[in-house]
Amino acid sequence: MAEKSKKPQKLKARLPRGLEDRGPAAIAATRRMVEKIREVYERYGFEPVETPAMEYTDALGKFLPDQDRPNEGVFSFQDDDEQWISLRYDLTAPLARYVAENFDSLPKPYRSYREGYVYRNEKPGPGRFRQFMQFDADTVGSASPAADAEMCMMAADTMEALGIPRGSYVVKVNNRKVLDGVREALGIADDGQWLIVMRAIDKLDRLGISGVQQLLGDGRKDESGDFTKGAGLKAGDIALVVGAIEQGAPIDARLRDSKIGQEGRDELDAISKLVAASGYGSDQIIIDPSVVRGLEYYTGPVYEAELLLETRDDKGRPVRFGSVGGGGRYDGLVSRFRGEPVPATGFSIGVSRLQAALTLLGKLDTRPAFGPVVVTVFGGDIAEYQKMVATLRNANIRAELYLGNPKHSIGQQMKYADRRNAPCAIVQGSDERANGKIQIKDLILGAGLTEIKDREEYLRKQSEAQYEVDQSRLVDAVREVLVRHNVKWG
Amino acid sequence: MAEKSKKPQKLKARLPRGLEDRGPAAIAATRRMVEKIREVYERYGFEPVETPAMEYTDALGKFLPDQDRPNEGVFSFQDDDEQWISLRYDLTAPLARYVAENFDSLPKPYRSYREGYVYRNEKPGPGRFRQFMQFDADTVGSASPAADAEMCMMAADTMEALGIPRGSYVVKVNNRKVLDGVREALGIADDGQWLIVMRAIDKLDRLGISGVQQLLGDGRKDESGDFTKGAGLKAGDIALVVGAIEQGAPIDARLRDSKIGQEGRDELDAISKLVAASGYGSDQIIIDPSVVRGLEYYTGPVYEAELLLETRDDKGRPVRFGSVGGGGRYDGLVSRFRGEPVPATGFSIGVSRLQAALTLLGKLDTRPAFGPVVVTVFGGDIAEYQKMVATLRNANIRAELYLGNPKHSIGQQMKYADRRNAPCAIVQGSDERANGKIQIKDLILGAGLTEIKDREEYLRKQSEAQYEVDQSRLVDAVREVLVRHNVKWG
Repeated sequence: MAEKSKKPQKLKARLPRGLEDRGPAAIAATRRMVEKIREVYERYGFEPVETPAMEYTDALGKFLPDQDRPNEGVFSFQDDDEQWISLRYDLTAPLARYVAENFDSLPKPYRSYREGYVYRNEKPGPGRFRQFMQFDADTVGSASPAADAEMCMMAADTMEALGIPRGSYVVKVNNRKVLDGVREALGIADDGQWLIVMRAIDKLDRLGISGVQQLLGDGRKDESGDFTKGAGLKAGDIALVVGAIEQGAPIDARLRDSKIGQEGRDELDAISKLVAASGYGSDQIIIDPSVVRGLEYYTGPVYEAELLLETRDDKGRPVRFGSVGGGGRYDGLVSRFRGEPVPATGFSIGVSRLQAALTLLGKLDTRPAFGPVVVTVFGGDIAEYQKMVATLRNANIRAELYLGNPKHSIGQQMKYADRRNAPCAIVQGSDERANGKIQIKDLILGAGLTEIKDREEYLRKQSEAQYEVDQSRLVDAVREVLVRHNVKWG
Repeated sequence: MAEKSKKPQKLKARLPRGLEDRGPAAIAATRRMVEKIREVYERYGFEPVETPAMEYTDALGKFLPDQDRPNEGVFSFQDDDEQWISLRYDLTAPLARYVAENFDSLPKPYRSYREGYVYRNEKPGPGRFRQFMQFDADTVGSASPAADAEMCMMAADTMEALGIPRGSYVVKVNNRKVLDGVREALGIADDGQWLIVMRAIDKLDRLGISGVQQLLGDGRKDESGDFTKGAGLKAGDIALVVGAIEQGAPIDARLRDSKIGQEGRDELDAISKLVAASGYGSDQIIIDPSVVRGLEYYTGPVYEAELLLETRDDKGRPVRFGSVGGGGRYDGLVSRFRGEPVPATGFSIGVSRLQAALTLLGKLDTRPAFGPVVVTVFGGDIAEYQKMVATLRNANIRAELYLGNPKHSIGQQMKYADRRNAPCAIVQGSDERANGKIQIKDLILGAGLTEIKDREEYLRKQSEAQYEVDQSRLVDAVREVLVRHNVKWG
C-alpha cells in the first residue's frame, strides 16, 4: 500500500513512432475505397477469406526486401510454448498458409480476396508507416498466364473504379523469368551480386538510365554525397542489362539463348494477347521489362500499378506518386507446405498508400459530415432533455444531449454545437418549458449572420435562424431544418 | 549456394493456437453486424476515430483480470530503441491515450466510436480466442450519469438493431462505488482479499448464491474436485455481501454509512430515472448489484449486455450465452496522462462473441451467396473465352474463366462450377464456335434433374436447363438465368 500512495508519475501520451491515428474523414474515405475495390474483386468471382494478424514465424518465411535491421522487418514474440509468432508483413504469406492448411476443402483454382492491416518493423519515415492496409486478391492452383492476365485487368478496373481516369494510371507487367534469363546470360552465380543488380534495375524510374548504369558498374554517389557500391559489372554486361530493361529494345542474342528467359517472354506475350482480346489498351496495361518488385517470393509474371499523376515534393519539384499496388506469381509459397507444386498468383492494392495519394490529389471527398443535432441543457430536470434526444433518435435523427457541465452558459453550449458541426440546436429555458415550447436554432443559417451589414436584413435572417415552436413539433421542426440544408449523415 | 541446394524440410501449415481463419459467410455476417452497430452509434452522435493495433506498453497500463501468465495477458515486443510496445488488449486504453494526446483539439465532451481487433495473450480454449473484434463507443469529458445512461440505452438499441428481440437480452447496470461501499463496510484493507471477493460476486450467475457464499468463505470444491480458496470472510460479512448483491434486497444499515456506497446508489438512481424518462423499460435495462466487470480500470457505473437466449452445452444442458458486451466509467484512465481529472465512460460490444452466439442461435443468415458465372474452356484460343468473361464483367455480371488445366473434361469443369455454387456455366466447343453459338447451362435448374423419375419430364427439364443461343446474346441470356432464379450477389 505504501507504494500505491506515492503520487504516480504522469505518463506521456504518445503514439508510437511510425503509426497513425485516423479521424472521421480518413475512416470514411477508406470505407468507400474498400467498398469499391470489393465490388470489382467480387465481379471477378473472387470470394472473401481472412486470416488473423499473426502467424507462426516460420510459416511467414523471410521474403522482405532490404532486411538490414536485427528483427528483419517483422514484429515477433515468443509464445509461452516457446514458438515464435510474428505479425503478418503482407497478406500473401498468410494466404499461402491458409490454402496449404485447407487444401482439400477448397475449390481449385481458388480465387479469394481479403483486406487488412499489415505490419512492418521498419525504420519509420515520412509516408512510411509500420501499420498500413492492403487489399489483396489471389488465385491459387492455376499456372495459366490467363490467371496473371486476369490480375492485371482487375488491377486496371480497380484503379478506374476508384476514380482514377484512364491515362492517369498504368499497370506494368514484367516477368521474373526474363530477369532470370538476364542473370543466366551474365553468368552471375553470387546471390548477393544479383540482388544488387535487381535493386539497380528497380531504380530506373527514379535515377534514369545513367543512374542505373552507375549502380550496375562501380557505384553511384548521390546528391548528398553518399556513395552506394555498385554490382561491379563490366561495360558489355551493363549494356546487356540496360538493353534488357528498356521498353521495346530488341532482344540481345545472348538473352535469346536462355531457356528461362524465353519462357518468361512467351508468358508475357500470352498475357498481352489475353488483355488485348478483352479490350484493354496500352493506356491501361503495358509490358515493362524494368519492373522488379521487392518481395523475394515471386517466380514469374510481376505487376505494378502506378499512378502517373504528379504532385510536388517538399522542394516544389514535380514527382510521380509511383506504385500503389502490385503483385505477381509466387509458385513456391504454397509448395513450401505441400511438398508438391502449387502455382499461385496475386495482386495487392496498397490501400493506405493509394488513399494518401488520392487525398493529396484532391480525389477523395474529405468534407466533414454534419454532426448531430445538439439538445442544450438549461436548469430543470435533465431527464426531460434526455427524453427530447431519445425522441429525435427514435425518429432516426442523429442527436445528442449536451453532456458538459449543465451549468455552462448558452454561449459555451453553442460553441460546442458549432465545434460538432451541428446543423441545429434545441434550447429550452424555464419560460419555454412552462409554455410547452422549444427554441430551434438553425446553425447553418445562423453561421451567415455575422457577415450581414444591413440591420433589417440581419434582424430578418436572425428570426429565420432562431424561432420558437411547440415542443410537440420537435421532430417535424428539426426535419424542416435538415431538409432546408439537405443534411444527410454518413 | 550449397545450403540452398539441400532439399528444404517441408513446413507444417498450421494456424497458431487460439486464432481463427474466417470464410465468406462469417465475413459477410461481421460486415452486416458492424454496419448495424455503426448506424446506432452514429444516430447517437458518436463519430469514428481509430488508433493503431499497437501502443507503448506503459500507455496501455495493466488492467487485465486474472493475469496469471508471465507476459500478463498482452503480446509485447521491444522496439529497436529499447521501448516496449504491446498489441492492444482492448479499445479503451488506446482511446484514453488518443484523447490525452489530442486533448486540446477535440470537442469536449468527446463522443467517439471504433471497431477493431484486440489481442489477448491468454491460454486459448474453446470459444476463447487470442484475436477478436470489439466495437466501442466512449464519451470523454462528462462526469454526468446522463453519459452513463446514454451508454446503456445505446447498448439496448444496438441489441435490437442486431435483431435480438426485447426480452431476449438485458443491459445490467451496477456501480463500482456501491461495491467500494461494501468493501468499506467489511473493512477489507488487503487488495488481494478484495479481488477474491469481487471474483466471487462475479460468479453469481454461474454458481448461484451458495457457490458465492462458499467462495466468500473458506472456498469451494467444483465438480471435478478442484478446490478454489475463498476470501475467508466470517458468516456475518458473507451475509452482508450476499444481501448487497441480491436484486431488490433492502440496504443493510452497515452499507448505508458508506459515503462512497451512497454516491454509487445515487448515480444508479439517476441512471434509472434517465432511461425511464426516455422510454426504456425493465425488459431492456435493469439495475443489478451483482455486476462486477473484469477490467480493473472502472471507477463508477458498470454495464453488461447479456443474451438471455439459451443454447445447450456439450452435455445437452441448457446454458445462457451471458455477456456479449459491457463497459463502464473509467475516470482515471485519461487522467493518468493529463495529471487532471478527466471523466470518461464507454461501452464495448464483443462482436466476435456476439456473432458466435447469433450464429449458434440461427439468427445470422449464413446461406452462401451464389458464386460467379463460370465460362468453361474447350480447345481453341483461351483469349476468346477470356473475352466472353470480360464482356460479362463489363455488364456487371459476376463471372470467371475456368483457370484449371484447359484440358480438363466438361465433367471436371462442371464439378468446379458446382463447387463454386455458380448459377450457370457457359460452354463453347469447336462446333458452336464455328457457328457463333454458345451453350447456356442453367445449373440451378440442372441440379433438380437427378430427382426426376419421369422420362419425358426429364427430357423437357433437361432442355430447359441447357440450351444453345447466339454468342451475341451472351449477356442477355445470362441475365435471363439470373432473373429466373433471382440471383443477387453480395
